[in-house]
Amino acid sequence: MKYKVSAPKDPSSDRFILSKGHAATILYAAWAEAGLFPKSELLNLRKIDSDLEGHPTPRLNFIDVATGSLGQGLSVAAGMAYVGKNIDKASYRTYCLIGDGESAEGSIWEAMHFAGHYKLDNLVVIFDVNRLGQSEPTALQHDVETYRKRADAFGFQAIVIDGHNIEEIVRAFDEAAATKGKPTAIIAKTFKGQGLDGVSDHENWHGKPLGDKAGSIVKNIEERIAGNVPATIAESPVEDAPVVSIKNIRLSSVPAYKKGETVATRVAYGTALMKLAQNNSRVIGLDGDTKNSTYSEKIKKVSTHNYIECYIAEQNLVGVAIGAACRDRTVAFCSTFAAFFTRTFDQIRMGAISQTNINCVESHAGVSIGEDGPSQMALEDLAKFRTIPGCTVFYPSDAVSCERACELAANTRGICFIRTSRPATVVIYNNEALFQVGKAKVVRENPGDKVVLIGAGITMHEGLKAADTMATNGIHVCVIDPFTIKPLDADTIRSHTLRVGGKILTVEDHYPEGGIGESVACALSTDANIIVKRLAVNEVPRSGPPEVLLEKYGISSNCIVNAVYNLLQ
Amino acid sequence: MKYKVSAPKDPSSDRFILSKGHAATILYAAWAEAGLFPKSELLNLRKIDSDLEGHPTPRLNFIDVATGSLGQGLSVAAGMAYVGKNIDKASYRTYCLIGDGESAEGSIWEAMHFAGHYKLDNLVVIFDVNRLGQSEPTALQHDVETYRKRADAFGFQAIVIDGHNIEEIVRAFDEAAATKGKPTAIIAKTFKGQGLDGVSDHENWHGKPLGDKAGSIVKNIEERIAGNVPATIAESPVEDAPVVSIKNIRLSSVPAYKKGETVATRVAYGTALMKLAQNNSRVIGLDGDTKNSTYSEKIKKVSTHNYIECYIAEQNLVGVAIGAACRDRTVAFCSTFAAFFTRTFDQIRMGAISQTNINCVESHAGVSIGEDGPSQMALEDLAKFRTIPGCTVFYPSDAVSCERACELAANTRGICFIRTSRPATVVIYNNEALFQVGKAKVVRENPGDKVVLIGAGITMHEGLKAADTMATNGIHVCVIDPFTIKPLDADTIRSHTLRVGGKILTVEDHYPEGGIGESVACALSTDANIIVKRLAVNEVPRSGPPEVLLEKYGISSNCIVNAVYNLLQ
Repeated sequence: MKYKVSAPKDPSSDRFILSKGHAATILYAAWAEAGLFPKSELLNLRKIDSDLEGHPTPRLNFIDVATGSLGQGLSVAAGMAYVGKNIDKASYRTYCLIGDGESAEGSIWEAMHFAGHYKLDNLVVIFDVNRLGQSEPTALQHDVETYRKRADAFGFQAIVIDGHNIEEIVRAFDEAAATKGKPTAIIAKTFKGQGLDGVSDHENWHGKPLGDKAGSIVKNIEERIAGNVPATIAESPVEDAPVVSIKNIRLSSVPAYKKGETVATRVAYGTALMKLAQNNSRVIGLDGDTKNSTYSEKIKKVSTHNYIECYIAEQNLVGVAIGAACRDRTVAFCSTFAAFFTRTFDQIRMGAISQTNINCVESHAGVSIGEDGPSQMALEDLAKFRTIPGCTVFYPSDAVSCERACELAANTRGICFIRTSRPATVVIYNNEALFQVGKAKVVRENPGDKVVLIGAGITMHEGLKAADTMATNGIHVCVIDPFTIKPLDADTIRSHTLRVGGKILTVEDHYPEGGIGESVACALSTDANIIVKRLAVNEVPRSGPPEVLLEKYGISSNCIVNAVYNLLQ
Repeated sequence: MKYKVSAPKDPSSDRFILSKGHAATILYAAWAEAGLFPKSELLNLRKIDSDLEGHPTPRLNFIDVATGSLGQGLSVAAGMAYVGKNIDKASYRTYCLIGDGESAEGSIWEAMHFAGHYKLDNLVVIFDVNRLGQSEPTALQHDVETYRKRADAFGFQAIVIDGHNIEEIVRAFDEAAATKGKPTAIIAKTFKGQGLDGVSDHENWHGKPLGDKAGSIVKNIEERIAGNVPATIAESPVEDAPVVSIKNIRLSSVPAYKKGETVATRVAYGTALMKLAQNNSRVIGLDGDTKNSTYSEKIKKVSTHNYIECYIAEQNLVGVAIGAACRDRTVAFCSTFAAFFTRTFDQIRMGAISQTNINCVESHAGVSIGEDGPSQMALEDLAKFRTIPGCTVFYPSDAVSCERACELAANTRGICFIRTSRPATVVIYNNEALFQVGKAKVVRENPGDKVVLIGAGITMHEGLKAADTMATNGIHVCVIDPFTIKPLDADTIRSHTLRVGGKILTVEDHYPEGGIGESVACALSTDANIIVKRLAVNEVPRSGPPEVLLEKYGISSNCIVNAVYNLLQ
């Protein structure tokens, strides 16, 4: 590998992902050996005040992404390699070491499919075929021929080696470097605990200290290596990664809608993505074959180089986005149907531990998608993204605020999530309106308000309809658009709630758990004298027209009117 | 296929899973053609009062599992086939049709790996290679040779056919039926919209009505089929699936612990699983190579036939469990580390739509796992399972209640989730204690209580320590063990909270969103004069000793004492 010890994350350096994060100790030892930090530091492994944690995290300056939830590293590596080859067009190469047990994870094969399809010849994956899992031998044990066939069938140059033979290892990497037009998989047959007497190739040693065997084993190793260690000298990288900036990314033009016209927020997302890419060529879109529904395809009008088609493999979609965003090479927006992001929850979870900076944009949330039925209706996505530490959760209610949500997301570090809606909704904000993370908008306000009504997306518009209906009967409600569900603008909600006498009604196209209602209720859970009534979808819904479903599942304007009347009794 | 039209889910009938659920219409048409319901019913497709929904769900009596979130059907089919071959030891066969776009999903390859490894020769998967995805051609288009190589490398007999040639189709299924020792993959080269003039093999027709082309196309089809339709006559199944009952499953012996001894709830889970399998041979355990940590391996002491090793492929683990539980053939308990269940969220979501009846048991939740670090610490799992409609969420705080949670789960329909803990905790209940879903236990109660304290698992024990400390200072708190977080026993919590003056403190080894605190606060969100203060893990944690982490992240007994004092000021 070519890298600078003085700057482990230099943009031009080769990348290495230890997907089998439980082998962290050998990675730490290697960097110590390379001179990045004193070897004595290794003795602080897994201590509370050391960043040498049980599994790698970017608290360490030589780690790009956290690993330890298996099967995820190769997608990240593939994202880095894709950017290196097609966007940076630079010389750096990417290496990823995965375990054989880990290779049962489907996300590995999503990444293999992606890397093979895009002929990422700057990517090398090493399968450490050590035969043993945690609780028993792997399904394939030492059947390296099957690994070879699989790698070959997924478009890789596959090289089988004895993983303990240095000459074979070096030859394989040289061959990988010389191979054009396809990525390389090195299938390394190894023995777990090789060279450790009484441990090598034995079961029941996964993640266990050596105990009373330690003394003799360490002594034996020390005898074998004494006085014979060549210095580790890293070759310098070719410094050809372009200098880029991802700061202060703006929409190339302000939103251009007419108040009162109807535009789906998913369409506004496509427009915003295009405008952001016009402003900064490092803004990229990624999608899982839904780009004509999420409207992410609009970015291709700026340049096809700004778009990565990830096909129907959402775990890899998010992993590639995380990889693409590493070392601030791109600002990645990945999109698919809201329901299909569900299976990426572990990538998102690990993304937070990885201190990643990506944007996830969902369309087709909730029962308002209509006839496609419950399998296509995300009703738990707010709960999912809200759990993620530091995640910013946008839920724009019209096209203007959606464009601004995208602009804010491009400039907000960490994971940003934007929930867009399928149906067209009325534009309610002026094109000049200003939006901030954590700042709600009071959309309707009267001195005689009796209740604070909080909705977002579709239910914001149902709320406005309900407010109109009630106003004709002389009952006024304060309508608040939270804009971001996390962080939630508790201050604005609290002050208006106290003004109206302490009653809040929330309504959401989401299950009751973990969504807008719980967010609001919990932000105010220590406020005595405030009560929160919540309307949400309470059962597995079914196919039908959107407006019929809103009514059937209790979140329509009619239902809101009834709930307000009940609250006022 | 062999089946009875009169009983589409007869246990001895062949199974069919339409993994590409968006092709629902052809499945509905086929069953109508077979005589299950009048063809006129097909015209009610996607209407609100018809069960012929946009994607298949088990609201229809011929559907085993909902599909439409791609990539999941083959795991379910593999679970059915595994049970058919190894547990039912019956003649029925299982068929699964998947799309070519869908085959980019990693979960497909997890299932292929599983089916190949277990030589499920009663399973046939059909790849419908129609070249076109939703938004563009698939990565492999009509490259059937690559599909063949992949299926072969994953242990399948692979047969490439012209998917529009009936003779080739029949020959392939005959060959599959005659093949022993491996499953069969039929790679069918097809054209999307075959035979539809101006549509066949064209892009941009995914999920679209024919519009003004409809008249001429339908007329053309009618002309081609008129007067020449042979009657569909299903062959009868061999009725050799054993009669089984999964009702009233009990622990083979009552819990046998001593109050005050320390036992990890994960160990109690293993014991309970073993006892349930002793009582009913249809209780099975499935794990993803963590059985020596979750203790699911204990079931192998009853019989190795009651255990299915799913290796490190958690999406497939849950899918196989769902398949194994179909038609009430087994009571499936699937287990892995809590963090690794995260990636199964979409299988769980679809499981609820599928009306599945499975039990998910997690170990190693929260910061209390210690040195392995954040990648291994599930802190969002309660939020995830709470969103699932009808899911029963158990969080037992000691070994006795854990065994009873398992027993209740075995007899509770729908998805049950049990969160167990890694560290050993004190046994606090008598072996004879009775537990019910939705019934909390008041663990400590005094007339002078000032606060209701709610924790579960590790934090229940921290709460008891805190209560002891405060009692020495004359401050008493009521300690409640919710036992199930969903449904939550709001009545018990409310009545004790009103007794103590309206103050609740929750504490949990979980992020603040969607866990115990939000559950409690929201159950009481319309109760004025009750306030809920919540302690939870508020940032991405790090490696360290469990007790240090509990303190650092604000959920230790010390933190509880301080929070109670603050509440009382």
